[in-house]
Amino acid sequence: MSPAVTTTNGVATNGAVKPNKTTISTPLPNPSLQVTADHNLKQVEAPVYAPGIGEVLLHIKATGVCGSDIHFWRHGKIGSLVVEGDCILGHEAAGIVLQCGEGVSNLQPGDRVAVEPGVPCGVCFLCMEGRYNLCEDVQFAGVYPYDGTIQRYKCHPAKWCHKIPDHISFSEGALLEPLSVVMHGINIAGLSLGRGAVVCGAGPIGLIALAAARASGAHPIVITDLEPKRLEFAKKFVPSAITYQVQKTLSAEENSKEIRRLFNFEHVGEYGAPEVILECTGVESSVITACYTARRGGTVMVIGVGREIMNNLPFMHLSLAEIDLKFINRYRDTWPAGLQCLGGGVLDLKPLVSHTYPLEKALDALHTCADLSNGSIKVQILDEEENVF
Amino acid sequence: MSPAVTTTNGVATNGAVKPNKTTISTPLPNPSLQVTADHNLKQVEAPVYAPGIGEVLLHIKATGVCGSDIHFWRHGKIGSLVVEGDCILGHEAAGIVLQCGEGVSNLQPGDRVAVEPGVPCGVCFLCMEGRYNLCEDVQFAGVYPYDGTIQRYKCHPAKWCHKIPDHISFSEGALLEPLSVVMHGINIAGLSLGRGAVVCGAGPIGLIALAAARASGAHPIVITDLEPKRLEFAKKFVPSAITYQVQKTLSAEENSKEIRRLFNFEHVGEYGAPEVILECTGVESSVITACYTARRGGTVMVIGVGREIMNNLPFMHLSLAEIDLKFINRYRDTWPAGLQCLGGGVLDLKPLVSHTYPLEKALDALHTCADLSNGSIKVQILDEEENVF
Amino acid sequence: MSPAVTTTNGVATNGAVKPNKTTISTPLPNPSLQVTADHNLKQVEAPVYAPGIGEVLLHIKATGVCGSDIHFWRHGKIGSLVVEGDCILGHEAAGIVLQCGEGVSNLQPGDRVAVEPGVPCGVCFLCMEGRYNLCEDVQFAGVYPYDGTIQRYKCHPAKWCHKIPDHISFSEGALLEPLSVVMHGINIAGLSLGRGAVVCGAGPIGLIALAAARASGAHPIVITDLEPKRLEFAKKFVPSAITYQVQKTLSAEENSKEIRRLFNFEHVGEYGAPEVILECTGVESSVITACYTARRGGTVMVIGVGREIMNNLPFMHLSLAEIDLKFINRYRDTWPAGLQCLGGGVLDLKPLVSHTYPLEKALDALHTCADLSNGSIKVQILDEEENVF
Amino acid sequence: MSPAVTTTNGVATNGAVKPNKTTISTPLPNPSLQVTADHNLKQVEAPVYAPGIGEVLLHIKATGVCGSDIHFWRHGKIGSLVVEGDCILGHEAAGIVLQCGEGVSNLQPGDRVAVEPGVPCGVCFLCMEGRYNLCEDVQFAGVYPYDGTIQRYKCHPAKWCHKIPDHISFSEGALLEPLSVVMHGINIAGLSLGRGAVVCGAGPIGLIALAAARASGAHPIVITDLEPKRLEFAKKFVPSAITYQVQKTLSAEENSKEIRRLFNFEHVGEYGAPEVILECTGVESSVITACYTARRGGTVMVIGVGREIMNNLPFMHLSLAEIDLKFINRYRDTWPAGLQCLGGGVLDLKPLVSHTYPLEKALDALHTCADLSNGSIKVQILDEEENVF
Repeated sequence: MSPAVTTTNGVATNGAVKPNKTTISTPLPNPSLQVTADHNLKQVEAPVYAPGIGEVLLHIKATGVCGSDIHFWRHGKIGSLVVEGDCILGHEAAGIVLQCGEGVSNLQPGDRVAVEPGVPCGVCFLCMEGRYNLCEDVQFAGVYPYDGTIQRYKCHPAKWCHKIPDHISFSEGALLEPLSVVMHGINIAGLSLGRGAVVCGAGPIGLIALAAARASGAHPIVITDLEPKRLEFAKKFVPSAITYQVQKTLSAEENSKEIRRLFNFEHVGEYGAPEVILECTGVESSVITACYTARRGGTVMVIGVGREIMNNLPFMHLSLAEIDLKFINRYRDTWPAGLQCLGGGVLDLKPLVSHTYPLEKALDALHTCADLSNGSIKVQILDEEENVF
Repeated sequence: MSPAVTTTNGVATNGAVKPNKTTISTPLPNPSLQVTADHNLKQVEAPVYAPGIGEVLLHIKATGVCGSDIHFWRHGKIGSLVVEGDCILGHEAAGIVLQCGEGVSNLQPGDRVAVEPGVPCGVCFLCMEGRYNLCEDVQFAGVYPYDGTIQRYKCHPAKWCHKIPDHISFSEGALLEPLSVVMHGINIAGLSLGRGAVVCGAGPIGLIALAAARASGAHPIVITDLEPKRLEFAKKFVPSAITYQVQKTLSAEENSKEIRRLFNFEHVGEYGAPEVILECTGVESSVITACYTARRGGTVMVIGVGREIMNNLPFMHLSLAEIDLKFINRYRDTWPAGLQCLGGGVLDLKPLVSHTYPLEKALDALHTCADLSNGSIKVQILDEEENVF
Repeated sequence: MSPAVTTTNGVATNGAVKPNKTTISTPLPNPSLQVTADHNLKQVEAPVYAPGIGEVLLHIKATGVCGSDIHFWRHGKIGSLVVEGDCILGHEAAGIVLQCGEGVSNLQPGDRVAVEPGVPCGVCFLCMEGRYNLCEDVQFAGVYPYDGTIQRYKCHPAKWCHKIPDHISFSEGALLEPLSVVMHGINIAGLSLGRGAVVCGAGPIGLIALAAARASGAHPIVITDLEPKRLEFAKKFVPSAITYQVQKTLSAEENSKEIRRLFNFEHVGEYGAPEVILECTGVESSVITACYTARRGGTVMVIGVGREIMNNLPFMHLSLAEIDLKFINRYRDTWPAGLQCLGGGVLDLKPLVSHTYPLEKALDALHTCADLSNGSIKVQILDEEENVF
Repeated sequence: MSPAVTTTNGVATNGAVKPNKTTISTPLPNPSLQVTADHNLKQVEAPVYAPGIGEVLLHIKATGVCGSDIHFWRHGKIGSLVVEGDCILGHEAAGIVLQCGEGVSNLQPGDRVAVEPGVPCGVCFLCMEGRYNLCEDVQFAGVYPYDGTIQRYKCHPAKWCHKIPDHISFSEGALLEPLSVVMHGINIAGLSLGRGAVVCGAGPIGLIALAAARASGAHPIVITDLEPKRLEFAKKFVPSAITYQVQKTLSAEENSKEIRRLFNFEHVGEYGAPEVILECTGVESSVITACYTARRGGTVMVIGVGREIMNNLPFMHLSLAEIDLKFINRYRDTWPAGLQCLGGGVLDLKPLVSHTYPLEKALDALHTCADLSNGSIKVQILDEEENVF
């Protein structure tokens, strides 16, 4: 017995002082979706563990599928993160607390929570500075070798579970993860009331960025994409947005001129040019367009991730225009504020959930997300099963 | 002749290289409202001047009455600014360009403009740093000895006139001035999406601050006042706001506890405590309450102005909680962004105009504004006369 | 046994998962200096505890005496911190690791370390944001009920012990604590190369602030005090500093004019006016002088602590000059940078140690520090005893 | 006559309301060094103009040669700036005021001044925000079609001449221009006391960056270059610096590992890793090395300028490490602070002047600067002639 973890100033950073590897039996089976080292997906029953010290056992009720899940499946790696063995996917999740491990005081069974999937070490200088997202020893759910949330039962440190109120659905709770990416980007980039912004890319992150930029008071906001259908959705989602279809036949600089033209109105001239570009594609040509589009002294916030190496960066333009090129790695301290946005009516992201699947059909969810022709935006896996525990 | 002022890199900072004192005749009379050194108001015909180099002659179509106008009338001074002689009041204004002085290239007759009333020197180090609001030689319309906008015809440097589009009324254009105060405060304080804020005071500035904080994505937002009626209006104006009636029988610290209690919800605990307090009253007890209300590491942004000296500041509390106490002087670079907010539907401030008077009844406008019992919020003087010039 | 605390991502925040209360015997006695609830000091033998999980047992080799130690002794409280029982004083300390508790991996016996005395909870939102100095559950060595470092043997969480290299003496290591206060203030205030600064107060913190401001490239720097002798020392300590003796017969505003006059040279005019005031006294008249001394748009950084309440704050001046009034609570993330400064020759604080006493004469150290007539600056208690453990 | 420019709030932004094109006769000839559109240099007598409104006529006493002068000569362009006709080179200058044009009140004949060579428009939104270095209509001395300072007599707006005290030589005064580049970079990047920094490149800008970083309290500081001789000079110039010879046989990432290894000491571990990289070469491989060298969450400040396009940027690394890539365009508000540094003993840049030539031998000065084999650092053209005017 180690009651120490409940002591003030003695609680472990992440609550997971001792990840428990004792398997337990559960009233329902635990189907899971796993990626394999040889680029396959498989749906298999997974063991369930008792919550360790500082951990809670969750019934995962909702998991959103992310482009990175598809990437791990198809390419087996993202940067230095390599799928070297079977790993349960999923990191955009919400669920119900079933059991609390030793030393957990902030949660109790029955609590509804959103999962913050990255668990940092808590002791390095980056954790101490509060930049825990940069911790080099983060354990991220759904990234090999750490199992993710596309399963029914999962243990997670209580510290990284955020309580959600009853009027927020599990589906919305799971959206807090992609919203967190956007909020971190906006926190770093710094949008201002009545100043122009551009969002590059009308995928799930771009659409959330659009809504969040709008909710932050940026104006005017232009959203760009290659696909007219995605822009149509964006326009319906945030009617005050201006859409711009990127022209493949134009160079980055030419596209940027077209985008900037959309800001020349309302009698404010160059003042109205976009101060911040939220680049949500990670595609080279889009990042370069963003560099040319930002006003002098502006900021290009690279939220999207892409290839290892980027070429053709307009170096002298960035110098002459004194543009900040900023990059982010996931998020920090974003769940509570994101929760306020969803719970307080500041943001409504529900329209983004285009497809849902029961846990047993998780494989279909990934196939739907991977298929670019079906107009899917956010695909979620929902588990409606009731638990008597 | 000095055509030089039109030369690129040779235009005078404020356009007013040579304030012209040649009087001209006009199709209509030029009634004006003046404050006198002996604390009186008088409505008299004023001379009209030809626009000097860099200046435009405006037909002032709307002027809002500000608490400072009342203060100059009743007390004869604000800080070091003393009414030492007759001075036309008014600084929240919009109008139409009638004539352009030499060297004016950004405006032409017929243009509709909002007036930025403070004209800084343009050469001191504060102007060079872009903090022109802090220029020690600013010439501010409506502050002795610089005549204000409660008259029909007024010359003003073209550089400090901001074009407004047709769908923005002059009344709204005049609201850009108080909105600018708020925007500058918010720019300095830095609100964040989904983080809590408190607005102290539900007068015109407090109400604009409430709307602007809401438009910036702050949540939850509590607005405080002593008067239930003003809070009722605030609630109607911004329905998602939470109102708190300050209790005179409670100490500042006790009131702050009640206010903080309103943030303890949505399952986010202390995270939800107000990060920024927008103090819009300038009253000592309210500033002190603000100091106790801000979360640890938060900011008290003092927007309101008050007495020369403040007592009873909770010094040790500010130290232990590491709170920033920030102050602002008017605004800088706010008209274009404010215009975007009003023109783009980000903010709708029209409901704040509770009373309007024609120019010839400007005296009544000041009396209405000074009377605290009539529920007036923003009183404006509108001149509907047409000009054939 | 709980080896879990050594697991990556499972180490307790502060290492002190389980403060051990098992007493152990030591080769030497453990004399300690304690403050009592009835405002006395007593020198008594104290028990020595075995290091708990995550803790190390230290041989404290040096402790500096701080004004707050004197204040606890004479007044029994600082703000909400009250001496309700016997408590060993001391928090500016360095020593040698004698034993490591379970789960300690970053230190080993024989390591020389500087002690960061405040141990935050590690789980609240302030700890998570990296603002651990604002944690409301911090356990601070030398503040009742947490025993301090004026004793030979003390346990402390390994996480809050910072290794120091051989060429840094324990005396210097102990100076890292007051240096940390100054560094945090400078980090928040933001000094700039070639911009003017004022340091108010030539006590230990003011003198360190002077040296640190100089090392940060601020110039010119004026240091103020009431006592000519302290200013003389300051001038010898940092010869490029300008000294100003505060005149009791002058008002705060008049003193500020004299101070500002010292910046009117080098042909840079108002540009040279002090951008940042490092207020190190916490005395009301000095804070007010600081408010009048800062240039428009400048910052008054209140480092000194003082009375609960402050009166006579020049409210309107702060508004018109748009001055930031900032406050700090101790420090965060400052030991490593402070260590670089002392170890790299950026700062030499050794001349500040005016008096030293052996541990057995700790009482004399406090009396010397409390006596304002003896010219003492920093008084330290050094324990030269060798340990065979 | 137009006395208006002397009126408060009526002075032209740049003083140059009316550039005068009346030639005048002078006691001495006016030899000048001009670059031609066909990539040649010529030394010819140039006309002298009477100072226009707001201008002063200067006797240029010192001009430093900059790499950009060489670049204009050899390549005929830098980015969008093209040498389309004869243009007098030179922009790092100091001199004596000989005559004041109309409306000049801040200077008088005999004043010794340093020249800020860029004259912004003063009316665009970038000028109004204080970011005048980004003004798109800047008139920059020595950049076609604006004549520079490698001549004896030159008119310049009084507003952009900074008085220097007697104990600062003209040679030092001319060094304020390259120092300004560095100070702007450091202002934007933000160095901290006791935190590590890297300077890439030991040319004139790199060496000034090294001295300025040292004066700002950064520690440790590593400076890198390919040439051992330049590193030797750097070490003599700033003895506490650590030098690293970039290995051409190593990749950018491998070089970065070697550089980072130099920070692993003083017991502070990763904390000591370089927070800011001041990249002063503009060379692709060096910028990429900088990206890998900065600590997680750090900043790469690109001060050097280079090719239009940059390839091989480590995009994913920047994302994962959340690194800010910042760019600057010249400087703003740096002369007064730079002057304080030189005048106050904060920086001594005199050792950087390796070669000097009289004005009549300006051609030799450019050849010396262009010759990479002679160990020249900063080459200056000094005019010792006395003027009786």
